[in-house]
Amino acid sequence: MVDDNRQWRLTRRPVGEVRPGDLTLSVQPKPVPGSNQILVRNIYLSLDPTNRIWMSDMDQYMPPVALGDVMRGGTIGVVEVSNNPAFKPGDIVQPFLGGWQDYVVADHAQKVPVSPQLPILASMSALGMTGATAYFGLLDIGKPQAGETLVVSAAAGAVGSVAGQIGKLKGCRVVGLAGTDDKCAWVTRELGFDACINYRKENVLEALRRACPNGIDIYFENVGGEILDAVLTLINLNGRIALCGLISSYNATEPVPGPYMFRNILMKRVTVKGFIIIDYLSRMEEFFRDMSQWVQSGQIKWRVDLIQGLENAPVALQKLFTGGNTGKLVVQISPEP
Amino acid sequence: MVDDNRQWRLTRRPVGEVRPGDLTLSVQPKPVPGSNQILVRNIYLSLDPTNRIWMSDMDQYMPPVALGDVMRGGTIGVVEVSNNPAFKPGDIVQPFLGGWQDYVVADHAQKVPVSPQLPILASMSALGMTGATAYFGLLDIGKPQAGETLVVSAAAGAVGSVAGQIGKLKGCRVVGLAGTDDKCAWVTRELGFDACINYRKENVLEALRRACPNGIDIYFENVGGEILDAVLTLINLNGRIALCGLISSYNATEPVPGPYMFRNILMKRVTVKGFIIIDYLSRMEEFFRDMSQWVQSGQIKWRVDLIQGLENAPVALQKLFTGGNTGKLVVQISPEP
Repeated sequence: MVDDNRQWRLTRRPVGEVRPGDLTLSVQPKPVPGSNQILVRNIYLSLDPTNRIWMSDMDQYMPPVALGDVMRGGTIGVVEVSNNPAFKPGDIVQPFLGGWQDYVVADHAQKVPVSPQLPILASMSALGMTGATAYFGLLDIGKPQAGETLVVSAAAGAVGSVAGQIGKLKGCRVVGLAGTDDKCAWVTRELGFDACINYRKENVLEALRRACPNGIDIYFENVGGEILDAVLTLINLNGRIALCGLISSYNATEPVPGPYMFRNILMKRVTVKGFIIIDYLSRMEEFFRDMSQWVQSGQIKWRVDLIQGLENAPVALQKLFTGGNTGKLVVQISPEP
Repeated sequence: MVDDNRQWRLTRRPVGEVRPGDLTLSVQPKPVPGSNQILVRNIYLSLDPTNRIWMSDMDQYMPPVALGDVMRGGTIGVVEVSNNPAFKPGDIVQPFLGGWQDYVVADHAQKVPVSPQLPILASMSALGMTGATAYFGLLDIGKPQAGETLVVSAAAGAVGSVAGQIGKLKGCRVVGLAGTDDKCAWVTRELGFDACINYRKENVLEALRRACPNGIDIYFENVGGEILDAVLTLINLNGRIALCGLISSYNATEPVPGPYMFRNILMKRVTVKGFIIIDYLSRMEEFFRDMSQWVQSGQIKWRVDLIQGLENAPVALQKLFTGGNTGKLVVQISPEP
């Protein structure tokens, strides 16, 4: 591995769930940085639902990954070689989408704060892109007010777990939805959600009705489908829906209908706003300021589901779609220095 | 008629379209105003898609009309008897939802400006609730910028025809959708829309693609269904959808799926906001100031489809759902003074 650069390349667009042969592991020589560039050895690779979107050629928010290209993904790594005076070997950095590979050459990268209170994995989760997604989606679109009821789907996931905790910090009643009793227990006992519904065991509409006696003011949406319909049924006047993800449809091979209760967006004068974290990159300072404080003080807890080995990345990705992970799904490519 | 008060009462909740027997004409004595009240003889009755919602007992933005009650509806009338020093006989007024009846007793009413440039019917259309709906929905939610593309469904209707004209005043490219060639001709030749698509004759998606070469920035939505899906397919980044109505589903007897392209709300970071004119009642001054000027100067044109006779109101209402009306649908109950 030391002199090779293993790369997962997209060789076929998946139909439905990702299958063997959609991605192919190729081995290239370790790249050499040019003038003013740095060579980064990737340590951690972020696996996210949006990876599946990037593999498809549907109309989306970034160009899809081209067939034959290295699979796109967020990484944190360590600078091995620097031809750029702003970086030195040993710096822990986040290159822009370092990819599913051992090494990446970059013109620029963001330095990652590391301390006993801020381990590198915090910057892969609460203090990383998923934490920022939760932060801006909830605060900017959800606009939580103390006493309001916030519902979060995929509540044990990387984004939902943080969104719900921020809701608690803002004084909301927070109700999560997750797919196992263990996840629900984590969300309520460790993260302080007021309630969590196991959507695989309960009638979602009835359970939400019980858990939200004053209706729903804010919905942080990661899933879509039946859960969205149940929330729209119970949404309050002037409700806000931060539309962050629709994972229930990412593997779909047929057109997926929108919510049957779409009309309640009208009746209840709801605001639905889709967002992607890249819309907020100019405001990351706000996020770092608040979140690094919340993480260091323990007010925001985070958890990583760590998979060892780049070779296991495609199989690990499935956990996001089967509900297999709790917290942020991360692949460890190489050891921390 | 002089001493009687004919009233259409809701006697059965319609299933699907309104049928004979859902509303029943009853005759009561002309009511007598009490202390500080006024007796208004209704002249014009507004027929609106939302009337159908009020007849249903589904979860909605106002309580449904109770079985046995007089059907709710907006009217303009003339004061016949006043026990209130703020009004005198002969005043033209808009009581709050004067109902499908000859006479109404009211504690209060809004005075209607009347002049050669502002006939009473202007206050039933562009300068009335439908005009205000167009005004606030387009300006407050659509936030039109010069050079943007605005699409308006039900473009020959009372709301859509005004929304599109305001879009032109704000410098947008405005594309309408309507159900007949005559309506399309009115919308483009008389109202100045840049294009209008006859959705019954053309493939909506292909026609919109041709008419909106730069995509769609704003959608003023009155209809729902297939047109909404086509617009979502072509919506631009940061698009806005002012959700005013979903008339295509108001007569539905089965659950109606939301748009299949719902995911583009996420991918394109679209804002969808439902609204009802009653949310804006505190801001009507702004509307009256701008719209009375636009109407008097001829910058905003309006048209009324006038049906004679209260007895014909239930049948006339169907025109809204069959696309039979052009402009504001109004029933004349009694003559202007």
